[in-house]
Amino acid sequence: MIKARVIGAGGYGGAGILDLLIGHPEAEVVDVVDVENVGMPISQKFPHLKGFCNLVITSPDEAKWDGGVDVVFTATPDGVGMRYAKQCLESGTKLVDFSGDFRFDTAEAYAQYAQRIGRDPGHKALDLLQYSCYGLAELHRQEIPSAKIVGNPGCFAVSTILGLAPAVKAGLIDLDTLICDAKTGVSGAGIKPSPTFHYPSRYENMNAYKIAGHQHCMEVERELGLLAGHELVVTLTTQVIPLARGIMSTLYGRIVRDGLSAQDVFEIYEGFYRGSKFVHVVPQMGAASNNDVRGSNFCVLWVNVDPRTHQLIVVSHIDNLVKGQAGSAVQNMNLLFGLDEGAGLMRPAFYP
Amino acid sequence: MIKARVIGAGGYGGAGILDLLIGHPEAEVVDVVDVENVGMPISQKFPHLKGFCNLVITSPDEAKWDGGVDVVFTATPDGVGMRYAKQCLESGTKLVDFSGDFRFDTAEAYAQYAQRIGRDPGHKALDLLQYSCYGLAELHRQEIPSAKIVGNPGCFAVSTILGLAPAVKAGLIDLDTLICDAKTGVSGAGIKPSPTFHYPSRYENMNAYKIAGHQHCMEVERELGLLAGHELVVTLTTQVIPLARGIMSTLYGRIVRDGLSAQDVFEIYEGFYRGSKFVHVVPQMGAASNNDVRGSNFCVLWVNVDPRTHQLIVVSHIDNLVKGQAGSAVQNMNLLFGLDEGAGLMRPAFYP
Amino acid sequence: MIKARVIGAGGYGGAGILDLLIGHPEAEVVDVVDVENVGMPISQKFPHLKGFCNLVITSPDEAKWDGGVDVVFTATPDGVGMRYAKQCLESGTKLVDFSGDFRFDTAEAYAQYAQRIGRDPGHKALDLLQYSCYGLAELHRQEIPSAKIVGNPGCFAVSTILGLAPAVKAGLIDLDTLICDAKTGVSGAGIKPSPTFHYPSRYENMNAYKIAGHQHCMEVERELGLLAGHELVVTLTTQVIPLARGIMSTLYGRIVRDGLSAQDVFEIYEGFYRGSKFVHVVPQMGAASNNDVRGSNFCVLWVNVDPRTHQLIVVSHIDNLVKGQAGSAVQNMNLLFGLDEGAGLMRPAFYP
Amino acid sequence: MIKARVIGAGGYGGAGILDLLIGHPEAEVVDVVDVENVGMPISQKFPHLKGFCNLVITSPDEAKWDGGVDVVFTATPDGVGMRYAKQCLESGTKLVDFSGDFRFDTAEAYAQYAQRIGRDPGHKALDLLQYSCYGLAELHRQEIPSAKIVGNPGCFAVSTILGLAPAVKAGLIDLDTLICDAKTGVSGAGIKPSPTFHYPSRYENMNAYKIAGHQHCMEVERELGLLAGHELVVTLTTQVIPLARGIMSTLYGRIVRDGLSAQDVFEIYEGFYRGSKFVHVVPQMGAASNNDVRGSNFCVLWVNVDPRTHQLIVVSHIDNLVKGQAGSAVQNMNLLFGLDEGAGLMRPAFYP
Repeated sequence: MIKARVIGAGGYGGAGILDLLIGHPEAEVVDVVDVENVGMPISQKFPHLKGFCNLVITSPDEAKWDGGVDVVFTATPDGVGMRYAKQCLESGTKLVDFSGDFRFDTAEAYAQYAQRIGRDPGHKALDLLQYSCYGLAELHRQEIPSAKIVGNPGCFAVSTILGLAPAVKAGLIDLDTLICDAKTGVSGAGIKPSPTFHYPSRYENMNAYKIAGHQHCMEVERELGLLAGHELVVTLTTQVIPLARGIMSTLYGRIVRDGLSAQDVFEIYEGFYRGSKFVHVVPQMGAASNNDVRGSNFCVLWVNVDPRTHQLIVVSHIDNLVKGQAGSAVQNMNLLFGLDEGAGLMRPAFYP
Repeated sequence: MIKARVIGAGGYGGAGILDLLIGHPEAEVVDVVDVENVGMPISQKFPHLKGFCNLVITSPDEAKWDGGVDVVFTATPDGVGMRYAKQCLESGTKLVDFSGDFRFDTAEAYAQYAQRIGRDPGHKALDLLQYSCYGLAELHRQEIPSAKIVGNPGCFAVSTILGLAPAVKAGLIDLDTLICDAKTGVSGAGIKPSPTFHYPSRYENMNAYKIAGHQHCMEVERELGLLAGHELVVTLTTQVIPLARGIMSTLYGRIVRDGLSAQDVFEIYEGFYRGSKFVHVVPQMGAASNNDVRGSNFCVLWVNVDPRTHQLIVVSHIDNLVKGQAGSAVQNMNLLFGLDEGAGLMRPAFYP
Repeated sequence: MIKARVIGAGGYGGAGILDLLIGHPEAEVVDVVDVENVGMPISQKFPHLKGFCNLVITSPDEAKWDGGVDVVFTATPDGVGMRYAKQCLESGTKLVDFSGDFRFDTAEAYAQYAQRIGRDPGHKALDLLQYSCYGLAELHRQEIPSAKIVGNPGCFAVSTILGLAPAVKAGLIDLDTLICDAKTGVSGAGIKPSPTFHYPSRYENMNAYKIAGHQHCMEVERELGLLAGHELVVTLTTQVIPLARGIMSTLYGRIVRDGLSAQDVFEIYEGFYRGSKFVHVVPQMGAASNNDVRGSNFCVLWVNVDPRTHQLIVVSHIDNLVKGQAGSAVQNMNLLFGLDEGAGLMRPAFYP
Repeated sequence: MIKARVIGAGGYGGAGILDLLIGHPEAEVVDVVDVENVGMPISQKFPHLKGFCNLVITSPDEAKWDGGVDVVFTATPDGVGMRYAKQCLESGTKLVDFSGDFRFDTAEAYAQYAQRIGRDPGHKALDLLQYSCYGLAELHRQEIPSAKIVGNPGCFAVSTILGLAPAVKAGLIDLDTLICDAKTGVSGAGIKPSPTFHYPSRYENMNAYKIAGHQHCMEVERELGLLAGHELVVTLTTQVIPLARGIMSTLYGRIVRDGLSAQDVFEIYEGFYRGSKFVHVVPQMGAASNNDVRGSNFCVLWVNVDPRTHQLIVVSHIDNLVKGQAGSAVQNMNLLFGLDEGAGLMRPAFYP
């Protein structure tokens, strides 16, 4: 059994890893770490885990880095993963980090990202970037197994990159016209209460936020740029709507290939994701909804063409807490340890 | 007192008119008409109206057209308004129709619309189109008072036209790049139950529908085309999200005017809507949400510029049942009868 | 116009008063007071009030008590109303307090209440209790007009007292068997965010709390005891369910009158509430739901008899923020100033 | 592998069985039967099953009863299970029926039940009642393995019987005072859309229904009567609240044992459920909520005593679709086939 430590176990990211590893045939959590509630059983913090996880929350200061752990998940804000990365690697432990700390592999790219989110542009573990890989398995399935650190992708980034990658790769759309209109459920904002996400303020509410400023945009531009072969920019609008889990991103790009039909696009997408068991492509005459993915690691891409306006319109659905976070992390762990990519993840969506 | 007949009183549109006229100082409902539940007090169909409206539902066949009514609201599907329009006008009654029957003023435009929604392209009251006016008061405040029939606008149309009109008028954006990403609450689909809107299927769900095919698109293109001075097309994506009331449309257009700042756009929008008491413009450093408009007749437009991608991004919020339907209808009635445009409509949003 | 000051304007209670007085024909808010956001326009705190209320939040320390205000609403936690009561009365101002400060008219009763909620049992304005009245208009319509201070009732108390009063008064049920199973929406917990009411924790959740310990129980026992002519106890179970607004209390008592039918009970309830325009009684063959009262000042009582178990079962519906709080407060204000009891309150429920 | 046929596969009950057997180590679905959508892949009806279940919906008329199936689940309305029971048993197949068809083991009891729900009081498979057992494993774990037919219990029955059984068995409470105040999510009403459960009518709504008349009451009375050693009646109030999944029943009984403390009750409940892995008992100083059980097969019982009113107050939480339906059915299947009672069911609740 692969032994896992979860740092930041008291948040939604941590709870997601716990949930998935409870059902995983070849991995188990051996240490739950958080800065709050140290000494409390995690099943008191999360009563739904009673009987499933009897671990007591430990402080990050107590964590021993002597090799008893095979993988660490840092389900933590920016800055935490880079703090523990060295100790991890020295003790032969792999690291899957949920923040932006290891999503960028150069000092320059990280600095630009850090500035956008108001952090110190200097990376604290610069020498380790060479051992890291961006953890979107559908695009980096070949490189992840040899990495020591995985920068688990941002939830909006998973949703939009998967939705646009085949079209960008195949040169179907004008790369100056990329628009990502992304809607997320409230859990994307984390477990900490705030006036904005207080139930009476949020039921029946919806709003855009960080317009022209969301940090996940940089991952999207980098990954799509790699596929395009040159730099590009995207317009990303992030919006919160009144559901707990799920991201629906509606993605637009002006078609530049004459006579391209919806069926052509469908086939190109199907081809691109052949071998990616967690991506389902749906043709224009089909339909898709958050119900298809909720609670699961799947991404459903509904591909459409508007012939009147020459727009490609892809609707991309994921569960932000699974494929957008803990599910991708487990998928990455599976790749790191040579397991089947889907181990512990092959569950249908939660219905109804 | 203006005396009103409501045809289709048993739907959300009818309930909306009843609600607003109960609080209106100069109008009252004198006849509630529906094809279902004839003979039942409307307050049995809608128990919240108990004590406020004691009328009994009458059949459309019984309706007398002898002048006892000043205005008729047809809160009905396509085809009904045009059936009663002649009788209305002959008895000196004004008509406010909620369907697409009177949103287009030429036989050609109507035929094109009718084909899109799968109806007979022949208009049943062609000779009356000359007495009709498109009922978006913010754009047609001058013409509505002299009309006899008002084609009340579609909910998505209200949301997107108000959001883009100032930019189109001022020539700020490339008219080949207009994208309207519209999200509606479930009441937009009407009062009739269906598997898609059954509570357990809809909570925690979201989906796009009628991609590249929603009929409200035609109103948007016509109205924006009038402002632009030439024909144009827009990409409209309609989406349902799990709330009952509200539309949030995120509107995109590529900026063509060099050096245009968010503040410039704000001022242009403020200028355009000077004198329109139901439109609030919010600058980029502000914020907006459905909570600002829910249950009210207001439209809040949050205007943004993404300088990296040269996109204008306007987030337009309305309540689909008020400004998107019954509220606009009452606003139109006020204009038809020379009342203050806001009579009976000056309520703050329902909070929380 | 009656001039009102609202202390605690930044909470749901304050927002409720603002909303109702905006639509009130004979009263207006002239001062909004809060300890937070002093100096901020209230319409910035509550954007839905933009254009309806231009007042700036003042500090309670700045409030002038020189007679420019006719009524003060203290929409505040326990302890605040009693602090300002003396100044109010000295300047000839009436006080409507939302807390438990003036719900009990003897030092002993208050002390018992205060101990239950963990507060100092000594009342800070003991000499003013003689000028106070319990503000449930349906039971104290005669006394309220001559009071100077009204102790606005607790939301659960309104719901359960109205539901049981007629049966207790008429001696229909065994007073040793009273059970009140009360379910509230989340707004009952106030505007302050907490982990329990964070959207992702609350959607799809429900729970009981303060079992056998809720403080509103004391008001219920006092009021029902007055009607019974002797002391009694009730079992009150408070529960939170995932909606924003509304209380549904299911009330049980064992029938002691032989042969009592559901129709008999209905007539007794109808008789009791004759003259109470905000209470609607529904017979057993009818139905009731939160939709009948949401956003309105109505209380709907659905009266049932289970002949197999000899139980009276009354289902009592109110909106916790209106009849359960701000609506009752305005109703009390109307009585204090000799206005029609329903002034500013005759709105149907918010639908859908 | 145990081979299962699911009749009524297109409802929530059927979907629940499919979901649980997909994750079951020793059982699999081999036939999905429904009267609607015959010939359609079940994964088209339920897109979340795409890739997990490739079966095509067959008609009940086509079903072969030749022994290729080990167990049949009739996730169907009353009357269907009894129609197929004979064929099942003749081919050596076990039957788990979701309706009331096999919840009563005498002609008289069934007739009484059937009358209450307006059905023919004559049982269509009277001679098979002797092979049936009531499928609440916590009470009938010993008998179920030797049964051929299991009458899977009603969701409200599971919730209330589990909550009161230990107190009734131990003689803690006056059996003339039993009150069950039960609240269910909307999925309890099934998959068929209706005006009552249309999203805009149901969000923010709550109501009681079938007061003094719900059919599950009879199971509760029979089972508690068996524990008490004599007949008894209970007051059951069923209510719908705006969540999709979950039942919270608040259960009341007047304590007759002097000096009984909450701790005493807790220990009695703990003792009763020793060996029942799906029941968690929570002491008075604890807490419980629907979040503890949602999506899982657990029942959480929070046991409380109100010393002022001498009431036992037990709050019982289950997921109506799992422990209240498909989960209990799988638990029963496990017992029928000699598997571990928890096989395929040991999942934590869905969080958040």
